[in-house]
Amino acid sequence: MNYIRARLTSFSLAVMACLVLVGPAYAADALPSWNDGATKQAILEFVKTTTDPSSDDFVAVEDRIVTFDNDGTLWVEHPMYTQLAFALDRVKALAPQHPEWKTTQPFKAVLDNDMKTVAASGEKGILELVMASHAGMSTAEFEAIVKDWFATARHPRFNKPYTELTYLPMVELLEYLRANDFKTYIVSGGGIEFMRPMTQAVYGIPPEQVIGSSIKTQYEMKDGKPVLMRLAEINFIDDKTGKPVGINMYIGKRPVASFGNSDGDRQMLEWTGAGEGARLMGLVYHDDADREYAYGPAGGLPESPFGTFSQSTMDEAKKNGWQIISMKNDWARIFAFDE
Amino acid sequence: MNYIRARLTSFSLAVMACLVLVGPAYAADALPSWNDGATKQAILEFVKTTTDPSSDDFVAVEDRIVTFDNDGTLWVEHPMYTQLAFALDRVKALAPQHPEWKTTQPFKAVLDNDMKTVAASGEKGILELVMASHAGMSTAEFEAIVKDWFATARHPRFNKPYTELTYLPMVELLEYLRANDFKTYIVSGGGIEFMRPMTQAVYGIPPEQVIGSSIKTQYEMKDGKPVLMRLAEINFIDDKTGKPVGINMYIGKRPVASFGNSDGDRQMLEWTGAGEGARLMGLVYHDDADREYAYGPAGGLPESPFGTFSQSTMDEAKKNGWQIISMKNDWARIFAFDE
Repeated sequence: MNYIRARLTSFSLAVMACLVLVGPAYAADALPSWNDGATKQAILEFVKTTTDPSSDDFVAVEDRIVTFDNDGTLWVEHPMYTQLAFALDRVKALAPQHPEWKTTQPFKAVLDNDMKTVAASGEKGILELVMASHAGMSTAEFEAIVKDWFATARHPRFNKPYTELTYLPMVELLEYLRANDFKTYIVSGGGIEFMRPMTQAVYGIPPEQVIGSSIKTQYEMKDGKPVLMRLAEINFIDDKTGKPVGINMYIGKRPVASFGNSDGDRQMLEWTGAGEGARLMGLVYHDDADREYAYGPAGGLPESPFGTFSQSTMDEAKKNGWQIISMKNDWARIFAFDE
Repeated sequence: MNYIRARLTSFSLAVMACLVLVGPAYAADALPSWNDGATKQAILEFVKTTTDPSSDDFVAVEDRIVTFDNDGTLWVEHPMYTQLAFALDRVKALAPQHPEWKTTQPFKAVLDNDMKTVAASGEKGILELVMASHAGMSTAEFEAIVKDWFATARHPRFNKPYTELTYLPMVELLEYLRANDFKTYIVSGGGIEFMRPMTQAVYGIPPEQVIGSSIKTQYEMKDGKPVLMRLAEINFIDDKTGKPVGINMYIGKRPVASFGNSDGDRQMLEWTGAGEGARLMGLVYHDDADREYAYGPAGGLPESPFGTFSQSTMDEAKKNGWQIISMKNDWARIFAFDE
């Protein structure tokens, strides 16, 4: 009896301690996975100043537009872009219908799991793989294929569905911004119809706030019902200078904040920074090989074909006061499944 | 004294009568400029059934997407598209910098106010006029030009700013749908950057919910600041089969309702109607030459180069149960400035 009471008392004290220690801290901290430091402070300060009606930098709700790159900014992009992993899986799945791929590059390399040759095929080769795997079906059929793949595919290192390989601090940032009436957009080099089936569930971002690269579609009647067929023809490349172009085309407003992680995001951050008033620009810097990956080559990290962050981008970031978000130092946790 | 009191009493009685008679009717009627009838009933019924959680046709808030054509559906498109009037005014304003236009068609015809020759120059000629007047400046410069023009230009028949030539019943419909958590989009053949400077003020539709035709833009640095330059090259034509393509590209969801007025809207209405559950499609029929214009040729009305509504579109509408919105019979008022 005494033992049980002692245990209960000890349990109650522990609960109370948690409520006292964690409760207010959690309530006060919308970004619990961010370590205290200059980066977190800059985010909190930006939101405070732009949402305070008495501030000179107050931003009206309808202009609170924030844009996020996806690959390497919101989720993992190594050892290869998630969409490339999807394309390779699709090529393998479609191979029985394409006996000629056994002897045609870059398809042969994919079927042989010869990633060196796939990589050596360059942009042209990758484009061939994407077109072969992403075109020739209706938008509805493609959506079903993408959803099936997300439900079954696993990341080779973390052995998790790709939709769990999102960065918890960035998901918190998305939620924190939305709680302060910012409208969050994805502006990614990735395929718009590859991302849309998962962005609402994973990031709380609806399809109409996803901007990405796209292939052309064509309106056709099939068995008396209209369909949009996906054509093997590029419509829009939402990367580098294409990002401001895409933002203007889709949103028609300049973002007040934007986040990326690579050379492909430079122009988006420049475009954001060129507006009047308070601005916040950030680049995720992958400097944590233990918990995720380390690549640059900025700061002497290894080169990478996926998500290149060059020294000249780092120099521009420092010159312009963009936040460098160090995964190693700024993030207490990286994934939701981390301890 | 008695006279004054009698007048005051009579005035008070009149005010009270107005409050009694008009007050509740207005409160109960979200569409006061619509005459009672099958069309209004279909709209009310659609909103009721799709927003009632106990209905089989209930639509979740995030899927309440409604698309509206602009020219001839939300505002006047005669005697010519508003944007064409803008292009002609711009050609005249720019003529001093282009002495060659005095002898080159279709520019010469514009400068001579010879609309017959302008019309005869066809799509190719109109495209030349649009490119000469819409390209070669930054997006910010173009926005300023458009705003200036809207502030000063007047419609030749109504002698009002074009932004006042919106159809009051359709503005009420937009507001009624938004009050029921529908997200309203414009999906127009008109230029996206021509519409965006006015849609928020005129329709309550923000720039990011405006889809239209566009020319290509290019990211450039000018005096150390990034700009998007407008190029004389078509990017996207948001008309006919382009409308479902544009809806998919920008929104990534199928609308549950859509409204148009011409052959250019057929595919948008087909695409809307092909979804599951309750749907509402409507076509504004310009059959009121007294208060606005009358053109078809559907139903034997005069042909028109702007906003052609052919008999085959009318036949498809009747076959598919699309609402034909007769301006003459369904609308008690057309413009806000009408008595």
